[in-house]
Amino acid sequence: MKPAAPQEAGPPPDWLEELARRLPAGRVLTAPEDLEPYAFDGTAALRTRPAAVVMARTRDEVAATVRFAAERKIPLVGRGSGTGLSGGSVPVAGGLVLCLARMKRILEVDAANLTLSCEPGVLTAEVAAAAEQAGLFYPPDPGSMKISTIGGNVAENSGGLRGLKYGVTRDYVLGLEVVLADGSVVWLGNKCVKDVAGLSLKDLFIGSEGCLGIITRLLLKLVPKPPARRTLLALFGSMEAAAETVSGIIAAKIIPCTLEFLDRTTIGAVEAHARIGLPTEVAALVLMETDGHPAVVEEEAEGMATIAKANGALEVRVAADEAEALRLATARRSAFAALARIRPTTILEDVTVPRSELATMVAFIQATAEKHDLRIATFGHLGDGNLHPTILTDETNAAEMERVEAAIGDIVDETLRLGGTITGEHGVGLAKKPYLRSQLGEEGHALLRRVKAALDPDGILNPGKVHD
Amino acid sequence: MKPAAPQEAGPPPDWLEELARRLPAGRVLTAPEDLEPYAFDGTAALRTRPAAVVMARTRDEVAATVRFAAERKIPLVGRGSGTGLSGGSVPVAGGLVLCLARMKRILEVDAANLTLSCEPGVLTAEVAAAAEQAGLFYPPDPGSMKISTIGGNVAENSGGLRGLKYGVTRDYVLGLEVVLADGSVVWLGNKCVKDVAGLSLKDLFIGSEGCLGIITRLLLKLVPKPPARRTLLALFGSMEAAAETVSGIIAAKIIPCTLEFLDRTTIGAVEAHARIGLPTEVAALVLMETDGHPAVVEEEAEGMATIAKANGALEVRVAADEAEALRLATARRSAFAALARIRPTTILEDVTVPRSELATMVAFIQATAEKHDLRIATFGHLGDGNLHPTILTDETNAAEMERVEAAIGDIVDETLRLGGTITGEHGVGLAKKPYLRSQLGEEGHALLRRVKAALDPDGILNPGKVHD
Repeated sequence: MKPAAPQEAGPPPDWLEELARRLPAGRVLTAPEDLEPYAFDGTAALRTRPAAVVMARTRDEVAATVRFAAERKIPLVGRGSGTGLSGGSVPVAGGLVLCLARMKRILEVDAANLTLSCEPGVLTAEVAAAAEQAGLFYPPDPGSMKISTIGGNVAENSGGLRGLKYGVTRDYVLGLEVVLADGSVVWLGNKCVKDVAGLSLKDLFIGSEGCLGIITRLLLKLVPKPPARRTLLALFGSMEAAAETVSGIIAAKIIPCTLEFLDRTTIGAVEAHARIGLPTEVAALVLMETDGHPAVVEEEAEGMATIAKANGALEVRVAADEAEALRLATARRSAFAALARIRPTTILEDVTVPRSELATMVAFIQATAEKHDLRIATFGHLGDGNLHPTILTDETNAAEMERVEAAIGDIVDETLRLGGTITGEHGVGLAKKPYLRSQLGEEGHALLRRVKAALDPDGILNPGKVHD
Repeated sequence: MKPAAPQEAGPPPDWLEELARRLPAGRVLTAPEDLEPYAFDGTAALRTRPAAVVMARTRDEVAATVRFAAERKIPLVGRGSGTGLSGGSVPVAGGLVLCLARMKRILEVDAANLTLSCEPGVLTAEVAAAAEQAGLFYPPDPGSMKISTIGGNVAENSGGLRGLKYGVTRDYVLGLEVVLADGSVVWLGNKCVKDVAGLSLKDLFIGSEGCLGIITRLLLKLVPKPPARRTLLALFGSMEAAAETVSGIIAAKIIPCTLEFLDRTTIGAVEAHARIGLPTEVAALVLMETDGHPAVVEEEAEGMATIAKANGALEVRVAADEAEALRLATARRSAFAALARIRPTTILEDVTVPRSELATMVAFIQATAEKHDLRIATFGHLGDGNLHPTILTDETNAAEMERVEAAIGDIVDETLRLGGTITGEHGVGLAKKPYLRSQLGEEGHALLRRVKAALDPDGILNPGKVHD
């Protein structure tokens, strides 16, 4: 991530009145104090104030806004709660922010067909709750799910803790209504589990980071709620032992629903923050969760405990009840927040490697921290190789920020050498844009740009991001 | 499907010698007797002889062939085993067929990362066998899997019997090497379970039916092999009872790995063909299979039997052993072949509806057969709403073929009215092309064409198919 200097827009453009005329009263925010909360997202050191924010309430208002932006060639950035971690919803100077947070109706839960239909501004946690009320389950659980919107999740193809067993957001999208760059509206998908009628265009919009269209309605797939769950905590004296445990679990044909990892620095931060009695002197803590049929859960939990011990775990603790399991899971979920208290600026990385390269990668991150004299804590999702090296720094210290940039460059290079990806779940946005070409190669990068040019020829949707 | 008159190419074009010079000896077939087997695929009543067939053995030979076609603007149709059921690999008159069947090496099975890498000409059954040898499982099982190629499966996004629980081919593709329309080569994907670095371009090529690029290498995802399996057969006096049973199973939160359905005509044909003692006087036979942990399999099998009986099943039979289970599964898999013996022409439809609309759809198909005085047998995958109404007809009977076309039109209209898709797993190709616009709408159809134009501006790849 290349930290950018804060940018400010110039004087209010002359088109604001015309835009306001085309929408119901109160939709367009222009006062500086109203724009301020929309100048940034969850990414450190990125800030740009937009010319205006449109708070859309309907699909037609979205279409009218995009059409207006298309006519005037005004940059337009779609946005939900703004919890993104790669700068994808940071405004473009002088442009519009189109906020979907007020389109927040759940339209249908169809238990017979295992689907849920909703608007993009519904919170991810509300989707999960509505599914649960019907005895069903919406598995994707990004860290921000209590405050992130489902539309944002789809635009970023969010991951979460359950990726290995349940996949990511993309795997749960059956249909999308999208407003295209010219303001026209298209519906892509249906309730059928199988559908091969033409290219899977919905897959193009999932993870498109607001660069191809604005999502205005979603049809999601649900699954039956797993009847049982068991949570275990294993402590290790070395990262290698933790990684060997993960390999052993997969080799035993166990696919746990979560396999979360915290390194020593992260454990210390979480314990200081949450005081739940985590031992702060171990090298690695692995939180393992299995869900499903009670008999399977029982067997897999025992199997995982045995494998952890065989690989030298210092201690394996099985959560006695749901309350303890929840406490452990909450501790893991608070990792970022806990780390963020240590120093003024917290840069959350998102590199992902094939599972077999995990120990190599974690060791490399530790060595990189030493090499560049930085403090880097690492946590993440071991099951799917998705690591979050978190750089604890201070954006006002220019010399340190240069070292941060160098360290990120080293980590990205090693990730790609190991066959990994520069971003497992946070997206490219602005933060990872400098590295995208290295991963995709010239041909792949050029192909991305061709698709973008075909769908947004004037480049009004989230310009300057991802591949731009 | 609109049956087309057989087409023949003109005299051999003058570029054949130049093409042969650019490739190793023996790669280019031009003799009429060599071209004949490549003039058709598994779709009834479609036949066009190509100018030449290139039997490529390497990625570079594929690239050289596509580059040549691009230079001369020669239509090029990629092809594996040619088992397609929508005419997708039927040649274009005067054009090239690029056959990938000889690129058939399995390159790697990586048990630690649960992946398999191979060339496109490997048979689907060989992929499944290689996975099984490593104690792993490649779930997609299209009916043609013993003879279809994996490259063809990906190009068509093939389904199969396990769609409800395990998804379709798309869900198992982690990476693709693709030769683009200009002959350049791009690699898309990696071994990471999570990857959000740019648009998911691989998803664009999966199911693109040869219209966007030629797949030359694949990286597939595997899962642990389920340790146990149980097969049940339930017989019903009415389709409604069978459909209610399926609804009851889903409501009980059971997701079986297969839920196959045969109607009375299909049962009769299969029994006449295979002589395995199926009762030919029932209205519907449902083959149910559960797989996974032994305790779960036991419980789900009991649950499904109970639900079937509660919904009025005339009989529920549990396969005593693997041999009987295999016999039942084979009987189901032979449905198409058995039906194909009855009359000269067999037109296999592929409409799919939301699961809740199954009984309505099956009744409509029966009524349509009566209305148009046709013989239509129906079988299919009840779990995912994917029906295969199979029209038993004679393509030389023009009057009957007109009625066939009218019946297909009616079935497609009803499918779309019920929120379904014109093709669940066979693709659009030539057969479903007339109906694609009705499903996607003008905006969706135009979007398909924009993406096609961006990736294949001269329209050399499989022209005239799908959206062309």
